[in-house]
Amino acid sequence: MKLTILGCYAATPRTLTNPTSQVLEIKNRLFLIDCGEGTQVQLRKNKLKFSKINHIFISHLHGDHFFGLIGLISTFALLGRTTDLHIYGPKGIKEIIDLQLKLSNSWTNYQLFFHELESKKSEIVYEDDKVMVKTIPLKHRVYTNGFLFQEKTGERRLDLNAVHDFEINTCYYQNIKNGRDITLEDGRIIPNHKLTFDPIPALSYAFCSDTKYSEDIIHLIENVTVLYHESTFLQSEETLALKTMHSTAKEAARIALKANVKQLILGHYSTRYDSIDLFKIEAETIFKEVLLADDGKSFEF
Amino acid sequence: MKLTILGCYAATPRTLTNPTSQVLEIKNRLFLIDCGEGTQVQLRKNKLKFSKINHIFISHLHGDHFFGLIGLISTFALLGRTTDLHIYGPKGIKEIIDLQLKLSNSWTNYQLFFHELESKKSEIVYEDDKVMVKTIPLKHRVYTNGFLFQEKTGERRLDLNAVHDFEINTCYYQNIKNGRDITLEDGRIIPNHKLTFDPIPALSYAFCSDTKYSEDIIHLIENVTVLYHESTFLQSEETLALKTMHSTAKEAARIALKANVKQLILGHYSTRYDSIDLFKIEAETIFKEVLLADDGKSFEF
Repeated sequence: MKLTILGCYAATPRTLTNPTSQVLEIKNRLFLIDCGEGTQVQLRKNKLKFSKINHIFISHLHGDHFFGLIGLISTFALLGRTTDLHIYGPKGIKEIIDLQLKLSNSWTNYQLFFHELESKKSEIVYEDDKVMVKTIPLKHRVYTNGFLFQEKTGERRLDLNAVHDFEINTCYYQNIKNGRDITLEDGRIIPNHKLTFDPIPALSYAFCSDTKYSEDIIHLIENVTVLYHESTFLQSEETLALKTMHSTAKEAARIALKANVKQLILGHYSTRYDSIDLFKIEAETIFKEVLLADDGKSFEF
Repeated sequence: MKLTILGCYAATPRTLTNPTSQVLEIKNRLFLIDCGEGTQVQLRKNKLKFSKINHIFISHLHGDHFFGLIGLISTFALLGRTTDLHIYGPKGIKEIIDLQLKLSNSWTNYQLFFHELESKKSEIVYEDDKVMVKTIPLKHRVYTNGFLFQEKTGERRLDLNAVHDFEINTCYYQNIKNGRDITLEDGRIIPNHKLTFDPIPALSYAFCSDTKYSEDIIHLIENVTVLYHESTFLQSEETLALKTMHSTAKEAARIALKANVKQLILGHYSTRYDSIDLFKIEAETIFKEVLLADDGKSFEF
């Protein structure tokens, strides 16, 4: 997986900072998560191919998470796109886009599919042979979902020495990789675990923004490889965090700890602070594996 | 008057170029004309005060002229604005903004006034003691207006030597500046033109984008100080200009010549060309006083 942060600052686009948007690459698929104003320019700056984005996930309808969507949709049209585009986001998102296309007398030569969300329970919103995406219901001032991206567990890996020792014909290899035991010609049954190693562990990425501190999400994100959790504020602004339904760096770390994630990425910083390093310092008092998102930064895991 | 170009390229925002937006300063008023995606960041980059913008004029509802509006409105709210904001634009613009505010459960602590336009005839849309703004109906693929900004002619200027020679009391000066003749104590009438000079000529600025070549606008923009006329294409793309209802540099120059304007500023360039200098070279074959708009460039006149 490769995660590229296009923007990770709260509230408004500024001269040097961008509102939320990120691209997750899994198994050669490019998923766009949130789309604040200026996302299309950030895609260009980071040399990400517009044509490889077929699925866009919008967490909620606050401007800093979706005001760039209509522009991106229009640019796709101007670039002559013909591939289907799927948009997953809160109910109402279709009305906003449709109205703007109608009033500008514009249309797309590609098909736009809206998958409008309104459930307050986690649900699978995307699935193919290699990847699954589920919603993570969050607690914010408007209806909001995080998204959990999971690689599907791959095949078991053949132990080549073992299959040679048992002189197993190559035509059985796929069955073995699928987890089946094997009956030899002499009647002996060889259990699968003697012929294979465990598959490479499936990776997972959970995007949780925006949200107040909520332990309700822990069972959904337990043991994920990487958790992106918003940390709009530091603990010194705890009251403001509570009032605006955002999280502090310490709270994000507490969620990471309780969910036993491997790594935590912080983001959605308020621009009131002198340095984003303060977020890392605060979070590390609770949880050790903390990374800082920043515009244009990439993470491979 | 001071004109600052925030963006002057057609179609989509790119790494180094911005869609249409410009700020016109007249008599200490700041008027924002069009508001493509990224306008608020361009305002910051050009150090223009958000709080001084009270009137926004939107030519038409194509994305490259208004996708930045909702973001700017939201940012004004986040910055704690309380001053009224007036928006002049095609019918439908209120519905677009209202819907997005409603679905994001947002509001503005300042009053938003929409002045929706649907007339196909020129009309006065703004007027105060010093400035008047009229629409310039344009011919494009959707309902579009240009805008004509006119300073009102100032007072006549006192000829101090003359008023001293006639020993006129200062209490009559305002009447004289307003154009009145004066009757002296001995009964002589002194005509106004012997006591004053003509006022400083009023300046005017006409913004015409987007539009196909149309001589119908000439009577509205005749003799303006500065005409900004779109030139999306060069004459080599004449057919494309006709099809998309845009103008070429040569056509813009022809309008400038026929309207007898003092200066022509070209803009709304397609990004297909290697250099915008080509637009100037082409326009100058028809009209001599040609300037090129470019993002971040200012013009004082």
